[in-house]
Amino acid sequence: MKTSFPIIMSYEVVGKDSQGGFMQVFRKTGLSLILGTMMVLPAAQAYEVAAHEVPVPDTVSPALQQDIAKGPSLNWNQVPSDAEGWRKAVSQSAQKVAVKAEALAEQLKVSIKESRMAGVRVFILTPSVVRPENKGRILLHIHGGGYVFLPGKAGLQEGLLMAAKGGYQVVSIDYRMAPDHPYPAAMDDAMAVYREVLKKYPADRIGVFGTSTGGGMTLALVLRARMEGLPLPGAIAPGTPWSDLTKTGDSYFTHEGLDTLLVSYDGFLKGAAEIYANGHDMKDPLLSPVYGDFSGFPATLLTTGTRDLFLSNTIRVHQKMRAAGVDADLIVMEGVSHAIYYLLPPDAPELCYHFSQLDKFFSKHLKQ
Amino acid sequence: MKTSFPIIMSYEVVGKDSQGGFMQVFRKTGLSLILGTMMVLPAAQAYEVAAHEVPVPDTVSPALQQDIAKGPSLNWNQVPSDAEGWRKAVSQSAQKVAVKAEALAEQLKVSIKESRMAGVRVFILTPSVVRPENKGRILLHIHGGGYVFLPGKAGLQEGLLMAAKGGYQVVSIDYRMAPDHPYPAAMDDAMAVYREVLKKYPADRIGVFGTSTGGGMTLALVLRARMEGLPLPGAIAPGTPWSDLTKTGDSYFTHEGLDTLLVSYDGFLKGAAEIYANGHDMKDPLLSPVYGDFSGFPATLLTTGTRDLFLSNTIRVHQKMRAAGVDADLIVMEGVSHAIYYLLPPDAPELCYHFSQLDKFFSKHLKQ
Repeated sequence: MKTSFPIIMSYEVVGKDSQGGFMQVFRKTGLSLILGTMMVLPAAQAYEVAAHEVPVPDTVSPALQQDIAKGPSLNWNQVPSDAEGWRKAVSQSAQKVAVKAEALAEQLKVSIKESRMAGVRVFILTPSVVRPENKGRILLHIHGGGYVFLPGKAGLQEGLLMAAKGGYQVVSIDYRMAPDHPYPAAMDDAMAVYREVLKKYPADRIGVFGTSTGGGMTLALVLRARMEGLPLPGAIAPGTPWSDLTKTGDSYFTHEGLDTLLVSYDGFLKGAAEIYANGHDMKDPLLSPVYGDFSGFPATLLTTGTRDLFLSNTIRVHQKMRAAGVDADLIVMEGVSHAIYYLLPPDAPELCYHFSQLDKFFSKHLKQ
Repeated sequence: MKTSFPIIMSYEVVGKDSQGGFMQVFRKTGLSLILGTMMVLPAAQAYEVAAHEVPVPDTVSPALQQDIAKGPSLNWNQVPSDAEGWRKAVSQSAQKVAVKAEALAEQLKVSIKESRMAGVRVFILTPSVVRPENKGRILLHIHGGGYVFLPGKAGLQEGLLMAAKGGYQVVSIDYRMAPDHPYPAAMDDAMAVYREVLKKYPADRIGVFGTSTGGGMTLALVLRARMEGLPLPGAIAPGTPWSDLTKTGDSYFTHEGLDTLLVSYDGFLKGAAEIYANGHDMKDPLLSPVYGDFSGFPATLLTTGTRDLFLSNTIRVHQKMRAAGVDADLIVMEGVSHAIYYLLPPDAPELCYHFSQLDKFFSKHLKQ
């Protein structure tokens, strides 16, 4: 490339603009040049947000206030350095969380039945009452955890809440994970279960939902179902989806240190992305679905929060879906960091709001 | 009040929780006490977000990148100290902005006709082509500017864009403002025009929209129309509404220094709120509509952005509307600070997206 601006010492290609045009930003010099128009723009530089206190909001419930008051997670950057370290970290957390999930199932009166579909372990979650209009419907739940955490019953919390709060039968997929089973094992398992469920239920009676990694996989499942010529589910509800495994998108930067659960990309997230992608291109839409084509997607409900590190991961999908004409709906919850809406006590107003919105959404869009 | 916690030196009542329960937070001591349950909670304290750089996102258009690269506004806290100072500041900006609005009208081929309705000055904005399905419809535009700025033609930019991009006839209300005409003059004028328009158009063919203060007034107009027994408009689109004139809501704190246009509550916003409210209770729903009852509201489309200081002002309204069963839709735009979506060049992708979403929304919800 020839240029007539000798003061430009270095540059980096930072991606394409929203219309697909090639763009280079000269961050170091503070000059930017858009090829094509050859226009010299004013400084395309970062600016600094000064250190500031964020009080516990008085516009959220006492339950959420308590959660926020704990402050940011302290171990967000204690990333294991090898596969053995990951296995140990995963197993330690899974044991604790599984106990909580079993207690929650008892409290909510949801039965957990372990089973297999096409060789993949699943949990069939059945509430004490399946609402009459939901008898012909099924919800697939894909748990979160960065493609490494929450195996087995540890991944059930969100599925149990949906089963109980909405009166649905839920199939929660215990897909294989990294480090032992990197991409595409998790998606292969989710697809295998989806294909099995399609044998028993018409697609327009199947809903798919999940948070974080489970939200990303929900989107990837639809992309892959379309690629494979399968009928698409009737409706999907990806909660704060991990739609971009690279550190791309505004809120990875603007909400750094604000989100109490994730805190920053440059800790567990980065580590998990690397160990799951395992050398594959992280911008492949089946890893980072925000780069996929959403045209023809079923009705979609996305959830995020005002403190969510994944605010942009969520709204970039929403914006792109809406531009493609998808019936895409969005909820942003006051004071909520990543995924917190389902980690509160089961009677917390924010949790109840989230699941009641999902219930209304699936009730509206799934055939009976 | 008697308490048995002698270490508590001072407390402040910070409001009610989301279920209407009375709540006091002992910020100073880091202890909180919920009356009723008499539960001592862990520290309800703020945490600090460290200083951090926010780069210009590579996930937005070059036009928005240019805007973001300018960094935060420098004069956000140069607040006039008396009425004469306000008049001077308003008049200086109005002259400049009115010139831009007239140029924009010419560029977009929208005619501006000054008129009066019930004694209130309005501008009738007519695009070169009113789309056939819009012939029986009318949009009311309420401009922004903190109840002090953008009088006369300076307030027309957003209305002109809506007229041109959607092919609608738009009536833009040049309501009276502070310091000379504090609350409720602005709302009185908006209501007077609404009543006049109701004489010519059935309510279900009337849409109301506006940004910032115009978004807050759009919400207040519906609250007041209901109080006065008037039929409600068919659909409303409040953009990043100033729904809370007090510094209440998460993003007033979390997005401080991030939003390039407003920067912080503690500058022009605080000054404008005081000079407009003029001693009235700022939590009156006609001043801060987030405290209103939204049940029975018409279909609503709200717009905000990932850097918006009014993210919470917007989503608190959305969350409350959804809980009340209102058909309330939400758009959050990547990289967008307060109101920026309509201040970009008229062919910027983000601006086009916003107005095309508003167009689809009004097309769907207004009768022909």
